[in-house]
Amino acid sequence: MDATAPQIIIVGGGFAGLWATRARAATAAQVTLVDRSNHHLFQPLLYQVATAGLSAPDIAAPLRNILRRQGNATVLMAEVVAIDKASRQVRLADGHALDYDFLLVASGAHHAYFGHDDWAAHAPGLKTLDDAFAIRRKLLLAFERAELEADPRARRAWLNFVIVGGGPTGVELAGTLAEIARHTLKREFRRIDPTSARVILVEAGPRLLSTFPENLSDNARRQLQRLGVEVRSGVAVSRIDSEGVVLGEELLPARTVLWAAGVAASRLGAALGVPLDRAGRVLVQPDLSVPGHPEIFVAGDLAAIVQDGKPVPGVAPAAKQMGTHVARAIRARLAGKPAPVFRYRDYGNLATIGRMAAVVDFGRLQITGLFAWWFWLIAHVFFLIGFRNRILVLVNWAWSYWTYQRHARIVIGEEPDDQ
Amino acid sequence: MDATAPQIIIVGGGFAGLWATRARAATAAQVTLVDRSNHHLFQPLLYQVATAGLSAPDIAAPLRNILRRQGNATVLMAEVVAIDKASRQVRLADGHALDYDFLLVASGAHHAYFGHDDWAAHAPGLKTLDDAFAIRRKLLLAFERAELEADPRARRAWLNFVIVGGGPTGVELAGTLAEIARHTLKREFRRIDPTSARVILVEAGPRLLSTFPENLSDNARRQLQRLGVEVRSGVAVSRIDSEGVVLGEELLPARTVLWAAGVAASRLGAALGVPLDRAGRVLVQPDLSVPGHPEIFVAGDLAAIVQDGKPVPGVAPAAKQMGTHVARAIRARLAGKPAPVFRYRDYGNLATIGRMAAVVDFGRLQITGLFAWWFWLIAHVFFLIGFRNRILVLVNWAWSYWTYQRHARIVIGEEPDDQ
Repeated sequence: MDATAPQIIIVGGGFAGLWATRARAATAAQVTLVDRSNHHLFQPLLYQVATAGLSAPDIAAPLRNILRRQGNATVLMAEVVAIDKASRQVRLADGHALDYDFLLVASGAHHAYFGHDDWAAHAPGLKTLDDAFAIRRKLLLAFERAELEADPRARRAWLNFVIVGGGPTGVELAGTLAEIARHTLKREFRRIDPTSARVILVEAGPRLLSTFPENLSDNARRQLQRLGVEVRSGVAVSRIDSEGVVLGEELLPARTVLWAAGVAASRLGAALGVPLDRAGRVLVQPDLSVPGHPEIFVAGDLAAIVQDGKPVPGVAPAAKQMGTHVARAIRARLAGKPAPVFRYRDYGNLATIGRMAAVVDFGRLQITGLFAWWFWLIAHVFFLIGFRNRILVLVNWAWSYWTYQRHARIVIGEEPDDQ
Repeated sequence: MDATAPQIIIVGGGFAGLWATRARAATAAQVTLVDRSNHHLFQPLLYQVATAGLSAPDIAAPLRNILRRQGNATVLMAEVVAIDKASRQVRLADGHALDYDFLLVASGAHHAYFGHDDWAAHAPGLKTLDDAFAIRRKLLLAFERAELEADPRARRAWLNFVIVGGGPTGVELAGTLAEIARHTLKREFRRIDPTSARVILVEAGPRLLSTFPENLSDNARRQLQRLGVEVRSGVAVSRIDSEGVVLGEELLPARTVLWAAGVAASRLGAALGVPLDRAGRVLVQPDLSVPGHPEIFVAGDLAAIVQDGKPVPGVAPAAKQMGTHVARAIRARLAGKPAPVFRYRDYGNLATIGRMAAVVDFGRLQITGLFAWWFWLIAHVFFLIGFRNRILVLVNWAWSYWTYQRHARIVIGEEPDDQ
């Protein structure tokens, strides 16, 4: 390790942080990538782990394995708890401090309950692998409990599944869950009929997938309904507890509620002591640095930036582009030049809905249904990190597709106490 | 479901219980298979999950999926807490009771600390998928902690790995762990040298693999040493705590200790109220029924039976043979005939040690090294349940073999407090 080289600390091994680390522009410096977990997660397929279609290693790879050939990069599995801008240090939870010349904070976002933190115990969200396992366990156990339950009303509550939030994650979860109930589990129970399960997708706003054009929202709703999902839009959730969900005035009994309704930025945004937007994201400069500190950058879901009058969306391609940009900006600074301005290139927007169902928006060109689904599949397998994973994920998917089987239907871990 | 058909309750979905359920002889009755978990586990490969070579779904399949086409079989995910022989009922943890005409108790064994239960917190054992994840997390985090640690002594303790118990599980874990340290992680750290890790296998008895002939034990020791494992036999562990292990008088500092030294039978053995051996196993009759209750059978690791002066070993082939036998015995009883006597057929004994290292004992024929390893590999893949798993496990292994990569190196779950 070259101690005289400029030190870059990158916090977060998601798309933004990893792309910044791997960018060729970063190789002039010593890079230390700090993440709480030991792996990069391909978040767009996390719902597949939650719904037992993929196993964790299919969509996650150890950061230090990804970076093993990059000699200037050190990976530390640690939690950053504070940032001292004056002394240019980040402080770790174990008390150690790391010095930086340049800092990139790319610690992302987590799901948030907007002041209803008591809902968290009843309606898990989906941001990490641990979240995905918790959801998987909850889904699979619901059918097991229903099979054991003699009382018809109690059984019904085990077979009602409510997903709160009609964005991409909610739509994916609802479509996949309907497929599981209608096909995967069809012949496997003797006392209950899994196909009688209700999957209810609730969206407070007027339509699903609000970042898509209206006709694609309508199309997504129809595709979901064809898969067997009940879509309830324009109705807000006013309570979630162990009995179920209250929609407006109506109590919907459900032992399984999933939360896909909102995210909040990582707390490290606030730790920077710079202006934030309402969701806690850092209002970055056009070059992605923070005001008054050209040596500190923010990228990915933690960064708020407006381009051509529209906010840059919190999607993987934007995070990757931001990460690469930050590496370039640091190289410019090191060369004594001004950092370039970040430009987001929007290559299109796509959302998967379920088996052979998706929507893709390229602006002028729109695709729906089977074609959109194939497009989504190919794009996602292509972008999965690591050659091995791509092949195996393809094999898994091909198998699931033909057999309706989901190979990761394994309940792991202790049951939560409330069940 | 035919309510007038004889009711068979099978407790435990391991090899004994599952083979009893699937045996053709069982189809004349209604079978209810009760297991605490939702899956059958291919336990011989569990150490691969613990050492990040395979992911959980590679070696586990949902019981109800395995049995989906067997209309006479109902699967319940529930815990049996009591057996009432007089009323012929098993009682579940949720308060329900199930009636039986015939009962098979095949709830296996778990690891045991022989009166040192305080060691459990420091030295996890390996019986379930949850155990495997706990061990995987402990192994992977040890290297991460070492990379973060500045103090050389503390770092050394993170890089010392002690495995207690020189049976098949201990040997597998030690051999694989040495491979991980020497090859898999070789280039991935910047501050520590993973190849400097010490892997120490401790066996209180005079030799490893005590159920094998002495020359194969010696061979296994040499193969392990070649892989980089330090073997310490004839020395007992007198203490295990967060600092390390005390061997005789010597303190061996080690933050990672794994327990592979002993098992105890499931508590349901005692719940039967019949004579047990010292390890808590049920002393069954020659037909595998329990004394005085020809309608109750015990099979697998929970059954103690002596044949030709030797105990039938607690291995998968014995459990499968017992399960199949119980189905046949019940069919005989239903036909008003006496149950046949169980005969264990010993097809040989094999243990894997690590990369290209194994020992196989067919009595007169013995194989060691590369050939034994290939034999072990083929046998295990062949016996893995489910066609899909076999192919994917082969792909995974082929990949791992050529690249030394282990694809499941993902740390999941919260850290235990003591680290």
